[in-house]
Amino acid sequence: MSMLKGIAASSGIAIAKAYRLVEPNLSFEKKIVTEVEQEISRLQDALTISKNELEAIRDKAKVDLGEDKAAIFEAHLLIANDPELISPIEDKIKTDMVNAEYALNEVTDMFIMMFEQMDNEYMKERAADIRDVRKRILSHLLGIRLVSPNTISEEVIIVAEDLTPSDTAQLNRKYVKGFTTNIGGRTSHSAIMARSMEIPAVVGTKSVTQDVLGGDLIIIDGIKGEVHVNPSEEVIKQYKQEQILYEEQKAEWAKLVNEKTVTADGQQVELVANIGTPNDLEGVINNGGEGVGLYRTEFLYMGRNDLPSEEEQFQSYKAVLEGLNGKPVVVRTLDIGGDKELPYLNLPKEMNPFLGFRAIRLCLEEQDLFRTQLRALLRASSYGNLKIMFPMIATLDEFRAAKGILEEEKQKLVSGGVQVSENIEVGIMVEIPSTAIMADQFAKEVDFFSIGTNDLIQYTMAADRMNERVSYLYQPYSPAILRLVKMVIDAAHREGKWTGMCGEMAGDETAIPLLLGLGLDEFSMSATSILKARSQILRLSKKEMESLSEKALQMRTTEEVIEAVKAATGTLELV
Amino acid sequence: MSMLKGIAASSGIAIAKAYRLVEPNLSFEKKIVTEVEQEISRLQDALTISKNELEAIRDKAKVDLGEDKAAIFEAHLLIANDPELISPIEDKIKTDMVNAEYALNEVTDMFIMMFEQMDNEYMKERAADIRDVRKRILSHLLGIRLVSPNTISEEVIIVAEDLTPSDTAQLNRKYVKGFTTNIGGRTSHSAIMARSMEIPAVVGTKSVTQDVLGGDLIIIDGIKGEVHVNPSEEVIKQYKQEQILYEEQKAEWAKLVNEKTVTADGQQVELVANIGTPNDLEGVINNGGEGVGLYRTEFLYMGRNDLPSEEEQFQSYKAVLEGLNGKPVVVRTLDIGGDKELPYLNLPKEMNPFLGFRAIRLCLEEQDLFRTQLRALLRASSYGNLKIMFPMIATLDEFRAAKGILEEEKQKLVSGGVQVSENIEVGIMVEIPSTAIMADQFAKEVDFFSIGTNDLIQYTMAADRMNERVSYLYQPYSPAILRLVKMVIDAAHREGKWTGMCGEMAGDETAIPLLLGLGLDEFSMSATSILKARSQILRLSKKEMESLSEKALQMRTTEEVIEAVKAATGTLELV
Repeated sequence: MSMLKGIAASSGIAIAKAYRLVEPNLSFEKKIVTEVEQEISRLQDALTISKNELEAIRDKAKVDLGEDKAAIFEAHLLIANDPELISPIEDKIKTDMVNAEYALNEVTDMFIMMFEQMDNEYMKERAADIRDVRKRILSHLLGIRLVSPNTISEEVIIVAEDLTPSDTAQLNRKYVKGFTTNIGGRTSHSAIMARSMEIPAVVGTKSVTQDVLGGDLIIIDGIKGEVHVNPSEEVIKQYKQEQILYEEQKAEWAKLVNEKTVTADGQQVELVANIGTPNDLEGVINNGGEGVGLYRTEFLYMGRNDLPSEEEQFQSYKAVLEGLNGKPVVVRTLDIGGDKELPYLNLPKEMNPFLGFRAIRLCLEEQDLFRTQLRALLRASSYGNLKIMFPMIATLDEFRAAKGILEEEKQKLVSGGVQVSENIEVGIMVEIPSTAIMADQFAKEVDFFSIGTNDLIQYTMAADRMNERVSYLYQPYSPAILRLVKMVIDAAHREGKWTGMCGEMAGDETAIPLLLGLGLDEFSMSATSILKARSQILRLSKKEMESLSEKALQMRTTEEVIEAVKAATGTLELV
Repeated sequence: MSMLKGIAASSGIAIAKAYRLVEPNLSFEKKIVTEVEQEISRLQDALTISKNELEAIRDKAKVDLGEDKAAIFEAHLLIANDPELISPIEDKIKTDMVNAEYALNEVTDMFIMMFEQMDNEYMKERAADIRDVRKRILSHLLGIRLVSPNTISEEVIIVAEDLTPSDTAQLNRKYVKGFTTNIGGRTSHSAIMARSMEIPAVVGTKSVTQDVLGGDLIIIDGIKGEVHVNPSEEVIKQYKQEQILYEEQKAEWAKLVNEKTVTADGQQVELVANIGTPNDLEGVINNGGEGVGLYRTEFLYMGRNDLPSEEEQFQSYKAVLEGLNGKPVVVRTLDIGGDKELPYLNLPKEMNPFLGFRAIRLCLEEQDLFRTQLRALLRASSYGNLKIMFPMIATLDEFRAAKGILEEEKQKLVSGGVQVSENIEVGIMVEIPSTAIMADQFAKEVDFFSIGTNDLIQYTMAADRMNERVSYLYQPYSPAILRLVKMVIDAAHREGKWTGMCGEMAGDETAIPLLLGLGLDEFSMSATSILKARSQILRLSKKEMESLSEKALQMRTTEEVIEAVKAATGTLELV
């Protein structure tokens, strides 16, 4: 019975057994063996178990995830059955009189190296497959259980060092009740995923993978940011009570699901959702989202071995546009790079990926990839209210280039008789300081702005938001950030355009009063934050918030701003 | 005879033999040997040559670099003489019947791993020493010549992939006539070093290490950014001619060495120098510097195994202050991290070091280190006109914390009877967007600003200046950057403070007219750029530049700004 503090990354309470998603230690020593036949039969046993396991995973993947993802395991089975790989391992055991682990490693190393040196993407991927199969066989030789999150079939809480987007993509929402990690902050991708999955999460605990064993009963308190390990009956009882209260609070908010978002003094704003896949639509609708303010299309590209086809993309975009039934959908074009990698694009490692070749920078260079996405979007446009947004725009030249390519593709489609909406707004993310500073000039050429605060804050403060040593500088309420936000909103309004915000800040209860005061038109957040935000805004006066934010712009430190918000909205005590 | 294009990083012309500073390929294969004794004698031979070489380097280092740096090679000699390391290698050759290279590698690997796993900094460094010694012995076993730049004793041009600050620290200015690299841009550290060493450099050639062999005669054209490999007699003749013309141009400029820097319409500005060590003072004085605008103290901390003592630092600071004889010296406190590492501080690897734990962020945490430097500075202050500047300030809280520590140390010294100047100005680098945006608030608390454009540009554009794929975004003349510069200068002037600039932009001939127009008070640059800049400013009218920069602030793209500067200063045709 112990308690760990972390960062409350997604609210709610979960009580379940811990499932450790931790890379196992598969190290071993080279040994000289005398009983060679016995060693070969150890290898055979490990192979048999591995193959059975792979067949089971493949069959399950077919049902749960579709033929496409199951194909990976089919490829693994082919490798495990390949005599050209297996015989040399047996030979090595015999001739060198070494243990099966060592022989397996040496032989597969040779194949991996061979494949990796080939100048052919397909062959390079085979090297990765051999690595995976080797890991599985090795785990059985060593009697260590491998984790494979896609086979989870009971309610669990995931415990991990960190969760990458591809890890989270593999999680089964039905069984994963929450998660907790050693590293990360409120804006890390794992945290964003948790909010989108509507499961409680506590990140940045520093040591949860050391303090929790697989099967331990744990409680995730995503409101206070606590993890209780093997809690007493009393604590469990108390948390079950809190779970009920939290549900009641949510029920109160749920009454606002069809309400408009109007301040106490009658000013209306729009509350929309950030989504990653068409599957997130249900959450948007259930939580009263008035549209989608950020559709992160990169999820379409992740957790697979090749680029999604135009048709595949078209289907996804169409599904979202139709699902929202005429409500606005802001689609962000591919934002890859930084902490989001696509292994199959084979991009060079960068020293500072956050300041690197990513998003629109990559799209303007890899135009085939970009044009395919734009065509899919244009074709889908007639099925709803589409707005297209380019990420990581730093200069007007980049915006003009991107828009030029969009226009070209549109003309081609139209000439080919394809129906394309005539009313697609084309805007940009404002997430780079230069763009906020130049917003007055941008406003003359774009249809709208959406401020991406996660990146804007990290660049403006020159502090990696994933780096715990400088996370104290990630200050959304800093007067510097508020000034940039104001520049953008004012610039847009002067040109009759609108400004949204799709960073985490838009759903933050301390930020909302300030943003309202600064004149933000559209707040895009995790679907699960919408009702709470609406409940907050209904009680605020825009006029009062204007004078609050006016004062905040002239303050010198973040601390002063937070104090001022507290003083102005003191009665707000939200969960 | 061929020609390579690169980026002109430091002007002038050099003609000399190429010296390749390239990591050699020391790979080898494991072999089973039958002649064991012969293999042991190969090892003995390689050891003997290595030891002789180490003794020679140590003796030379003692003379050229001092006892301190020579100590490293003394440590290497101890390792090469250690029977506890050498006997096991011989044993391994005998028992496993393997080649000397393999035995050396296996045995040293074991020691390296052992030392690295110890929780003791001293022991960890021994692992690095063993690696170095192994490399040397291995090179002799393989008959490959190792490069050791500190032993260069004839005139050469260095050819390298890139030059790190510690590589450049080892170069002997007497013999190194220029250098050229595969990667890097005008603001990479190698480029900055070249300008400070006053030697021509061409960086970013992409392939010079492939196209040039050691001993090839090459010409570095640091004006046009060209490298000529084994040029014809005619080309050599032509370049010798250009060398003379360049010298004549320099002689013209040299006449301005004691002039003040006053525009054609009578406005005076200050032209000062960026320096790294007291050795750079001579260059400052010879080039007519009116002081030092940036003393990069990190060089005091680099290329060694421990922190410099307070006394050592005091001596350096005192030397610079006395050397400048009352002219202003702006000392930047330790700016380590990012691309400048100090191995002995053992900082954790970061995913985005440019957005990481560096400069003031580190100093506010590692206060012992910071206080030692501040004490040395305070003690030196009575020997000249000292100004202290904190790097990477992002918030007023950080400035207040840093200044508070400085005040504490000052009080302690004064109570202890130490003489400390009463007139030390305390300012900050403005190199983070948030600080430029908040300059009006900062101006109420700091004594001066110095704009660090290299970082300010990369953060404002969110583009790593060392990353070639996004280097197109490193746009000093972008209206966004000019607006930030204006915010800072105007904020300072409203409070009666001054603003300098110590990034590369301050010495750039396209930027100078704009900066003059924006009202910059102090231009700090490579000493070698000062006379050229002075010659330019003497011919400009501040009033005209004001209207030029006023227009530039309202432009939309960098291209427009460059065109406008050309149009306004078209007659300027400088080398």
